[in-house]
Amino acid sequence: MTLTSPRKLDHIRITIDSNVSHDGASTLFEDVTLVYKALPEVSLNGVDASIEFLGKKLSAPIMVTGMTGGHAVAAKINCAIAKAVEELGLAMGVGSQRAALENPSLSYTFSVARKCAPSAVIIANIGAPQLVKGYGIEEIRKAVEMIGADAVAIHLNAAQEAFQPEGDTDYAGVIERIRDVASAIEKPVIVKETGHGIGLEAARLLRAAGVRIIDVAGAGGTSWIRVEQYRARAKGNEMLATAASTFSSTGIPTAQAVVEARWAAPDACIIASGGVRSGLDVAKAIALGADIAGVALPVINAYARGGEEAIRALLERLVTELRIAMFLSGSGSLAELRGADIVLGHRLLSIMKARGVEPELYLNGPRVLFKPGSGCSPV
Amino acid sequence: MTLTSPRKLDHIRITIDSNVSHDGASTLFEDVTLVYKALPEVSLNGVDASIEFLGKKLSAPIMVTGMTGGHAVAAKINCAIAKAVEELGLAMGVGSQRAALENPSLSYTFSVARKCAPSAVIIANIGAPQLVKGYGIEEIRKAVEMIGADAVAIHLNAAQEAFQPEGDTDYAGVIERIRDVASAIEKPVIVKETGHGIGLEAARLLRAAGVRIIDVAGAGGTSWIRVEQYRARAKGNEMLATAASTFSSTGIPTAQAVVEARWAAPDACIIASGGVRSGLDVAKAIALGADIAGVALPVINAYARGGEEAIRALLERLVTELRIAMFLSGSGSLAELRGADIVLGHRLLSIMKARGVEPELYLNGPRVLFKPGSGCSPV
Amino acid sequence: MTLTSPRKLDHIRITIDSNVSHDGASTLFEDVTLVYKALPEVSLNGVDASIEFLGKKLSAPIMVTGMTGGHAVAAKINCAIAKAVEELGLAMGVGSQRAALENPSLSYTFSVARKCAPSAVIIANIGAPQLVKGYGIEEIRKAVEMIGADAVAIHLNAAQEAFQPEGDTDYAGVIERIRDVASAIEKPVIVKETGHGIGLEAARLLRAAGVRIIDVAGAGGTSWIRVEQYRARAKGNEMLATAASTFSSTGIPTAQAVVEARWAAPDACIIASGGVRSGLDVAKAIALGADIAGVALPVINAYARGGEEAIRALLERLVTELRIAMFLSGSGSLAELRGADIVLGHRLLSIMKARGVEPELYLNGPRVLFKPGSGCSPV
Amino acid sequence: MTLTSPRKLDHIRITIDSNVSHDGASTLFEDVTLVYKALPEVSLNGVDASIEFLGKKLSAPIMVTGMTGGHAVAAKINCAIAKAVEELGLAMGVGSQRAALENPSLSYTFSVARKCAPSAVIIANIGAPQLVKGYGIEEIRKAVEMIGADAVAIHLNAAQEAFQPEGDTDYAGVIERIRDVASAIEKPVIVKETGHGIGLEAARLLRAAGVRIIDVAGAGGTSWIRVEQYRARAKGNEMLATAASTFSSTGIPTAQAVVEARWAAPDACIIASGGVRSGLDVAKAIALGADIAGVALPVINAYARGGEEAIRALLERLVTELRIAMFLSGSGSLAELRGADIVLGHRLLSIMKARGVEPELYLNGPRVLFKPGSGCSPV
Ligand SMILES: Cc1cc2nc3c(=O)[nH]c(=O)nc-3n(C[C@H](O)[C@H](O)[C@H](O)COP(=O)(O)O)c2cc1C
Ligand SMILES: Cc1cc2nc3c(=O)[nH]c(=O)nc-3n(C[C@H](O)[C@H](O)[C@H](O)COP(=O)(O)O)c2cc1C
Ligand SMILES: Cc1cc2nc3c(=O)[nH]c(=O)nc-3n(C[C@H](O)[C@H](O)[C@H](O)COP(=O)(O)O)c2cc1C
Ligand SMILES: Cc1cc2nc3c(=O)[nH]c(=O)nc-3n(C[C@H](O)[C@H](O)[C@H](O)COP(=O)(O)O)c2cc1C
Repeated sequence: MTLTSPRKLDHIRITIDSNVSHDGASTLFEDVTLVYKALPEVSLNGVDASIEFLGKKLSAPIMVTGMTGGHAVAAKINCAIAKAVEELGLAMGVGSQRAALENPSLSYTFSVARKCAPSAVIIANIGAPQLVKGYGIEEIRKAVEMIGADAVAIHLNAAQEAFQPEGDTDYAGVIERIRDVASAIEKPVIVKETGHGIGLEAARLLRAAGVRIIDVAGAGGTSWIRVEQYRARAKGNEMLATAASTFSSTGIPTAQAVVEARWAAPDACIIASGGVRSGLDVAKAIALGADIAGVALPVINAYARGGEEAIRALLERLVTELRIAMFLSGSGSLAELRGADIVLGHRLLSIMKARGVEPELYLNGPRVLFKPGSGCSPV
Repeated sequence: MTLTSPRKLDHIRITIDSNVSHDGASTLFEDVTLVYKALPEVSLNGVDASIEFLGKKLSAPIMVTGMTGGHAVAAKINCAIAKAVEELGLAMGVGSQRAALENPSLSYTFSVARKCAPSAVIIANIGAPQLVKGYGIEEIRKAVEMIGADAVAIHLNAAQEAFQPEGDTDYAGVIERIRDVASAIEKPVIVKETGHGIGLEAARLLRAAGVRIIDVAGAGGTSWIRVEQYRARAKGNEMLATAASTFSSTGIPTAQAVVEARWAAPDACIIASGGVRSGLDVAKAIALGADIAGVALPVINAYARGGEEAIRALLERLVTELRIAMFLSGSGSLAELRGADIVLGHRLLSIMKARGVEPELYLNGPRVLFKPGSGCSPV
Repeated sequence: MTLTSPRKLDHIRITIDSNVSHDGASTLFEDVTLVYKALPEVSLNGVDASIEFLGKKLSAPIMVTGMTGGHAVAAKINCAIAKAVEELGLAMGVGSQRAALENPSLSYTFSVARKCAPSAVIIANIGAPQLVKGYGIEEIRKAVEMIGADAVAIHLNAAQEAFQPEGDTDYAGVIERIRDVASAIEKPVIVKETGHGIGLEAARLLRAAGVRIIDVAGAGGTSWIRVEQYRARAKGNEMLATAASTFSSTGIPTAQAVVEARWAAPDACIIASGGVRSGLDVAKAIALGADIAGVALPVINAYARGGEEAIRALLERLVTELRIAMFLSGSGSLAELRGADIVLGHRLLSIMKARGVEPELYLNGPRVLFKPGSGCSPV
Repeated sequence: MTLTSPRKLDHIRITIDSNVSHDGASTLFEDVTLVYKALPEVSLNGVDASIEFLGKKLSAPIMVTGMTGGHAVAAKINCAIAKAVEELGLAMGVGSQRAALENPSLSYTFSVARKCAPSAVIIANIGAPQLVKGYGIEEIRKAVEMIGADAVAIHLNAAQEAFQPEGDTDYAGVIERIRDVASAIEKPVIVKETGHGIGLEAARLLRAAGVRIIDVAGAGGTSWIRVEQYRARAKGNEMLATAASTFSSTGIPTAQAVVEARWAAPDACIIASGGVRSGLDVAKAIALGADIAGVALPVINAYARGGEEAIRALLERLVTELRIAMFLSGSGSLAELRGADIVLGHRLLSIMKARGVEPELYLNGPRVLFKPGSGCSPV
């Protein structure tokens, strides 16, 4: 077994057993109000939440972002997720495929996703630091082929690695490697964070490097700093555990990240994830400028609670809530939801001001920056 | 018995037995301060709180908004309310008359209101979705005649219906049907919400459709989403119960709704309701631009506690508090109260800004938009 | 015994036994920060807190505002206060002298103040509603003579009277009567509130009526609405008790009242009272524009705890704290304290904006409106 | 033994045994967010946190500010701190040397620092009031020579002295004495507070007096007013104890003090201390404009817990956290950290506005005022 695998098991176990949600940060979705319309002028049944993503049609702009692979249990989880998204017309990603690239006998734990979801959107996954440490276009192609992926996600996780004694913390050349991959690979490249957020600056770098799909994975949901805090404590490394708790509020809240990524990359496809916990969160994310929303931790928790069944119930609830949110805000389609009236709270407004994002473009009036529908079929 | 009736009983029972107040939203009346005048230049006894409404004179701008009918208990409640408002010179509405229109033998449960209040303002009631599902001018006339109504209220409740499996969620044609009714019917038409609020956009649509009386019924008091949450849980529908709790803060707070409705419909008669719990709330609502205030849940709770007696005590307290609020703000009449000095808190101010309502017109100076007294006698 | 006396005893008892502080309002002094100076450029011993008031010199700008009289216990309290202020070089007022005017045998309960404080500033007291109900220049002269007063205070208490079944709530002609008194009487007239605050409008009316000394007695300390709430509850008047609790946050916070009164009456002598509980509060009040600060409830509580001794300890602490506050803000004199650097919090700033008071004139720079020292010797 | 010594022991004991942190004020570091960079473009190992200070190179901009001396225990503490900073390449100050100047047999309790840290930056210490009471250039030279100091710190503690019955509260001539010292002495002069903060005005005075190194020692960490509160209570001086608690929020929060000192003295070397509790605080201080950060109380607590070992672990954690903060904000050097993107919270922003500091110069764009590196080698 490789070095990677047991650590991944560690992670899954901790995220299921312990509270790994940000305790010092929130998504700031609570600072976003979708204005209620007493006269919505649509019918709930008539609401259309569908969107095209990577050349395929989703019934709703919801995906399960990459989490697992590399061991037997992971294979079961990946299949359960795959079956649910296949049935509901949603999308999914697999976890980092590094383990299988290092040890091909583990490939089945990823490819099972495609087997269980023959037609759904499925996304391959590889870590950014690996690109610096030698992975190239060849490994990425292997990862894509392994699962018949519709796109490949490169994940950034500087915040997490910084709190691992053995962490991969060389981010000096990452953006160049991403540019190389983006220009060489045949499939669309997604760059995603893992729970601490892609903001203005990173989104600008990524867009300039040719990346057209960004999953912000902001702060407010799973906190990898907190996961590492548990691990450090368990290993008796008090210094790292204390340091991790010092940084408990580090990260860009998801709502802020969506606004900033959209501001920095107006023509990109923006995926809002990190602490998305309801279809109302999904709706808020879209009204803020996202195209699609992603969810991770609740899906693994649902699996632990009740397998595929529970995953499907969770995703169905998200879709139902999104549709109700669209209805109650008078939005018959995602394009209308994107233009729906919102009220932003004080914290988000003052952050936007500090960051040079002009709130007027997000409030009271057409949000001209966004080109609805253009972003998410970049093939 | 019709489908409607047992559901209504359900509702009454839940509102009395459980806490059905918004837990995620407030009226924002706490963000409104009536400035205390150490030298009010009036006497408390000289304060005149009377207003003309629907051609009749009220001793104070307070009404009990529509709640019940359709079964024997409801008849008793309607009579108790009627006696109290008759005695005190206030106004009342009955609950949705759909049950009686479907089953005429239930008419007495509504008409009892007129019997017990021969001269008071009484308002008929019908649901907006019914208009789309076939009700027309004929049914509305029947509802009016059934109780000798002074006006008819059409209620909007999209938020509630969205959380009923059997919900009437077709709001596509509602505004056209309202326009039809408003132009054809002989009595004034009130359009009211039921606890989630009529804001800027709906008020504009309604005014353009010829409606001249709007009861905003905003968020902060009775939450129908919460009522449906109890019902869904009781029926084992966990998904809908969870979804309902997701939307626990949905709705336009009453203070905001009053400001927005007044802004959108300067010449309309605005009724402020939803979470009005004291005469001080009534006074604040009027200073914000409302003509009349309405109260529902506390009245049903008072009935449960002590019948007609308790209803009268409640309404008397509201009147006394309103008069004290007028005295302490130096307002000898409702017209003066409307121009009274107020200070708005941060949340309400920033919502107004986000919604394009100019706070300067509400603060420090004559609020020129409002034509005191013009709105509430539209006959 | 007159009607007035037992009610006054009631009041004293309640204020000592129960918590009668505003629970819905604060003074907003917590929104005022005196900027700390690491290099104060003065010595603590060199700080001069003295001021001339009504032609006499006070060692510090602190007075005990009027509270009692009319019964034997009151006489003891008045003497205890008098001895303490005589010794410390401060000022005091007596409570409403109505009881003694109605029943001259009670005069000694007031005149004892002058006996126990032969040279201190002592202020007579009469209620504004009495002026409307027939009191004239003659009664006021009697009140002044009764105690050899240096000035006479007319108190306003609309908020309190509104919650008494037997309340004097005719404020229609009060301002004219005050004008009459101010032009006819030989001694300076102070108009004071009793704990709910004199704001912009009342201060303007008073200044125009010839009043040159205003004691704002704002909200945040003793709440007379709360006192009446206890009394109503004790008498079984649930309606009035509930109404009183509805208005628990009514009143103009003292810090706001000082700013507004100073704004409205730049050349008046402003006394800041209502919730003044430390010498730091005194210092903040002066930095906001007051000339003198007053304290009431803590003095009566000190008496209950330890008689004259405790009153003196309390007042000594206030003086010490004021001097420390002057030292730490680098203010060698009250004139310098008035120009000391302050930072205002959000709530006070937004209230000032709403009320048309320009914060710039209170922050960063000379506060030109104030003419230090001019106000408080208006004889 | 001198008068000074037992009081110092008192202080050490209280700070270790009781909670002496400000309870009414915070550093406001919680109002400063270093923006997370998902693509930091540096490697954690490549981060360079070194800085030149007083002609020597520090591995990180962290010092232990002066605390102790004057008795046997203090000698042990000074040596333990000295060993830790020598090993880690940091700096330290000793406590007030007054005791040794008064009683030369105590010199060893200070000079031990140089013995235990032959090459580290060590700073001498003397109180400002002593300068007024007769100390001159000669005593300061003695203090410097006693420990082979690289600089001498003059501490200001008006807030503390004001709450001592025996306090030295003559600050009238302090700034002149500091000017004299600064122009005469051969070593650089640091002026420092002791936990209540040097703000705009004091920083301006100091810079004009020729001081080029300012340690703001702001509010939010150790509160000397609180220490004196314990002492007064222990001695039965209730009046002073109560007065001290009245002033529990007095002082300029450290984040504010850094901003103000930098604003007032753009070319000075600014040391940020007072409540610095993590390397993230250090990083925030530097992003706000400080050059170096100082820590006191946690070091004495660490000593009490585990001697030199614990001090080293504490300081190592601070360095590690600082480096992580630099990495996660994309800062390869302190100069880059100083220009790192930050978001300021509402309180700090409104204080800056009230104090005439322009937030634009601290947000979104190069902070031109700061000349990185210029300030801290003023020899
Ligand atoms: C158990 C677990 C494992 C994860 N593994 C990966 C991974 O291998 N690759 C990746 O890109 N993100 C991974 N993530 C991050 C998620 O994709 C997602 O960005 C993050 O958890 C925030 O979303 P959430 O708050 O909904 O959990 C993982 C998350 C969890 C909870
Ligand atoms: C038990 C109950 C039944 C109600 N039934 C009706 C109804 O039939 N028709 C209607 O227009 N509103 C109905 N309402 C809504 C009220 O008229 C009112 O708009 C809403 O409750 C908000 O006011 P509140 O916070 O004072 O209760 C009902 C409210 C309650 C509490
Ligand atoms: C027991 C008591 C009796 C009072 N009686 C009078 C009075 O007779 N006349 C008057 O002008 N104010 C009276 N006051 C009001 C005080 O003068 C003062 O304005 C008010 O209490 C607010 O100050 P405080 O918060 O320091 O108590 C009385 C206050 C108290 C506590
Ligand atoms: C026990 C103790 C003793 C101190 N003694 C001195 C001193 O003698 N001279 C001095 O300049 N500062 C002294 N200080 C103040 C510190 O240098 C520092 O400015 C202050 O404690 C704020 O930092 P902190 O919050 O990290 O403790 C002392 C602090 C403590 C905790």
